[in-house]
Amino acid sequence: MQYKSLARAISVLLFIVALFMFLCLLTGFAIGEGMIALRAFAIPIGLGIVFFVVMSLAGIQKVELSPRAGYLFVVLAWVSATALGALPFVLSGSIKTFVDAFFETMSGFTTTGASILTDIEILPRSVLLWRSTTHWLGGMGIVVLTVAIFPLIGLSGRSLMEAEAPGPRVDKFTPRLSQTALYLWLIYLGMTVVLVVLLMFGGMDILESIDHAFGTMATGGFGTRNASVAAFKSAYIDVVLTVFMVLAGANFSIHWKLLHGDFKSAFRDGEWVVYLSIFGVSSGLIAFDLFRMDSFPTMAESLRFASFQAASILTTTGFATADYLGWPAFAQAILFALMFIGGCSGSTGGGIKVGRFLTLFKMGMSEMRYLLNPRGIYGVFVNRQYLKKNIVYDIAAMVYLYLGSALVSTLVLAAGGFDILTSLTATLATLGNIGPGFGLVGPASNYAFFPDWITAWLSFMMLLGRLEVYTVLILFTRAFWKR
Amino acid sequence: MQYKSLARAISVLLFIVALFMFLCLLTGFAIGEGMIALRAFAIPIGLGIVFFVVMSLAGIQKVELSPRAGYLFVVLAWVSATALGALPFVLSGSIKTFVDAFFETMSGFTTTGASILTDIEILPRSVLLWRSTTHWLGGMGIVVLTVAIFPLIGLSGRSLMEAEAPGPRVDKFTPRLSQTALYLWLIYLGMTVVLVVLLMFGGMDILESIDHAFGTMATGGFGTRNASVAAFKSAYIDVVLTVFMVLAGANFSIHWKLLHGDFKSAFRDGEWVVYLSIFGVSSGLIAFDLFRMDSFPTMAESLRFASFQAASILTTTGFATADYLGWPAFAQAILFALMFIGGCSGSTGGGIKVGRFLTLFKMGMSEMRYLLNPRGIYGVFVNRQYLKKNIVYDIAAMVYLYLGSALVSTLVLAAGGFDILTSLTATLATLGNIGPGFGLVGPASNYAFFPDWITAWLSFMMLLGRLEVYTVLILFTRAFWKR
Repeated sequence: MQYKSLARAISVLLFIVALFMFLCLLTGFAIGEGMIALRAFAIPIGLGIVFFVVMSLAGIQKVELSPRAGYLFVVLAWVSATALGALPFVLSGSIKTFVDAFFETMSGFTTTGASILTDIEILPRSVLLWRSTTHWLGGMGIVVLTVAIFPLIGLSGRSLMEAEAPGPRVDKFTPRLSQTALYLWLIYLGMTVVLVVLLMFGGMDILESIDHAFGTMATGGFGTRNASVAAFKSAYIDVVLTVFMVLAGANFSIHWKLLHGDFKSAFRDGEWVVYLSIFGVSSGLIAFDLFRMDSFPTMAESLRFASFQAASILTTTGFATADYLGWPAFAQAILFALMFIGGCSGSTGGGIKVGRFLTLFKMGMSEMRYLLNPRGIYGVFVNRQYLKKNIVYDIAAMVYLYLGSALVSTLVLAAGGFDILTSLTATLATLGNIGPGFGLVGPASNYAFFPDWITAWLSFMMLLGRLEVYTVLILFTRAFWKR
Repeated sequence: MQYKSLARAISVLLFIVALFMFLCLLTGFAIGEGMIALRAFAIPIGLGIVFFVVMSLAGIQKVELSPRAGYLFVVLAWVSATALGALPFVLSGSIKTFVDAFFETMSGFTTTGASILTDIEILPRSVLLWRSTTHWLGGMGIVVLTVAIFPLIGLSGRSLMEAEAPGPRVDKFTPRLSQTALYLWLIYLGMTVVLVVLLMFGGMDILESIDHAFGTMATGGFGTRNASVAAFKSAYIDVVLTVFMVLAGANFSIHWKLLHGDFKSAFRDGEWVVYLSIFGVSSGLIAFDLFRMDSFPTMAESLRFASFQAASILTTTGFATADYLGWPAFAQAILFALMFIGGCSGSTGGGIKVGRFLTLFKMGMSEMRYLLNPRGIYGVFVNRQYLKKNIVYDIAAMVYLYLGSALVSTLVLAAGGFDILTSLTATLATLGNIGPGFGLVGPASNYAFFPDWITAWLSFMMLLGRLEVYTVLILFTRAFWKR
């Protein structure tokens, strides 16, 4: 294994993490909580810089990773960034134990948004900013990873891109990969800035706007208030966030197309159309159920809360404007079903992803046509393009491993004495990078009550889901460590 | 479509159903409830015979069905047998509405064991015998169907057999198909007789023994007491039923091997070994949890109740010796997880089946090996035999359609106002042909409280699960009806 190259690559990553912490430190001084910020950030920033300098001096210049080292890099990168990112929470006294801080930071980087904090509002604002920054870094990190980095090391992200995001393929997007990554960052940055401005119009101050924009664009879910977005009691903010959650859960190549006015090609993308349909239909059904059962006085208000929550769960953001555990059964069940789906491929959203569902649905249909006429030859077509069998195969195996992991994790949580619904949905909420679930982990609750070993296990689930199962599980195979 | 041939084939089936009803009628006279039995059975027996005679006189001699007609036949056969089989319940006044009687009979034929009856013990014994007879007919029906009939019409049962029941393949089992079917019937009949005798030793009378033997060998779950098997309060009966449930959930080719003393080859069968391991491990874990949480005073007693319930859910029988809703969380979650698995292929058990899980697990592993070395060629091997890619493909698509149907059905039930856990597990319990679930459909409850449209929907789910999804869903595709 190329451990030196690995260490070098990770040192670059931690340096970037330290830079963003430095921005939070500066913000702390700007808003008059300099000493608190210094206590929180000085040491981790120092660690990040020292490690980077040492590795630079070590003179490892070119980092060319083998596929195997690539997998290890991705997992170690996520874990070490989380370990470093957890320090400000512990050092500022915001979170008591390292296990809890690690969970909170993993929840940030993986854009899950599940929290072990019972009172967010007492945290220093610079630490809250760091908390939301982990979302923003992680959210873009995963897009760049799947769109730009994974293909290089032959990871399944590539087959996923080929499978579900045709049109501008990775290699066609722009001539050079670094340029693709740059454009993606620019789109992400641009949308974040627009959202910050829109939220400020809604009455949030600049820091709160930034925090929420980070949480939205990354489909994360961390905010600044204990009551989540419900605290703002603003229809305007609800609608703005709903729109941006839906955009953040879409493939970023769609944004590229939309920005270029290529609406026709955007709306010929099967995943995007199905994704919008799922959002529309589930919002409508939930709203209808809420109105029918008198949860809200008007249909308009029902639709506002329904669409927000549908977007929040489908895109795996996890914001809440209402405690949906009090909603009627059908509305709850739709949200439960959405927990299995997730956003689009190539988005910041988590979960199994709409594209995979679409592919497997078509696989089932083509299998039935084959059964009717065993001599015929039937394939899976996505966006009028034939999908190679081993890509479908790859997707099917991923979904199976995902659901298998969910079942195992449900048992692990139940071993801690938690009921089936809590165990199952806490698993889906972390594995799918959503945040809230049902039962004890509803939108008005948090993850504080879990014992440490479950907190650690759920941190692992978040990583497993974020890296789409294969990348993490592969490290546990014998073949990986065999020379 | 060959409608005349279809009608002829179905008339033969209904004639067989009428013959078994006639045996129940005779039993009714023998035990002194002749008039009640006559009222219950005379009309449906008459209908079955008349239809058969008419179709015979119509002079359709040879019935050679095309694959398309084959699918339609299987579904229509199940539905029409259920419609005829429901009449005795209505005519005897045991069940008020036809929808409920249809559900009860579908639950019988599909070996589900879910009941809308709130008091079984007031039913005439001849009607109770008919209720259990539907299990026995359905249980063997499905084995013969998957092992002997499906291959003939090119159904997926065949690829499943090829995939998961190697060793004596369908064509190698005996030289002639009709002979294979005969041997299977003989094994089934023989095991049923042995079980009847064993149960009579345990103190049951002959009719109760027969009813429970039918319910066990078919992995059905219908009994004669409101408290299910718990009513007998006998460790002997519990253990005997546990053993026979496990046997009934195994591939019948395993019985063939065991009967021939070919233990070595039997225990080299991957599915059988994994199936036994799942049973053993889950029994042990449940027993440990029960003992730890003081649900039972001794480890032996914990193991007795744990292994019975694990066998009951895993094999999709659905008998109960305890209300597991009162058990600790971990024990419950294990039973919940077992609901997804089911018995072995080529058994009377339902669910996704152990063999499919095993294949998909190996598929995931081979996919990871491929990712590590994209130039390598990796396949899925079951019992040291290479599995063709399109068989794996077929299995993956089936499991996906199964889980997708489960999600849709959960929403359907929730639309009736039922909570997530009830909606989800009532779906799994019917789709997987198990019987009891969690929430409102726990082992001490029944399905009586559902409104008619949900009762009808769940009847459909039972059929969908029993015919392994494809056979039913294929009728809803455009390709099927296109000429």
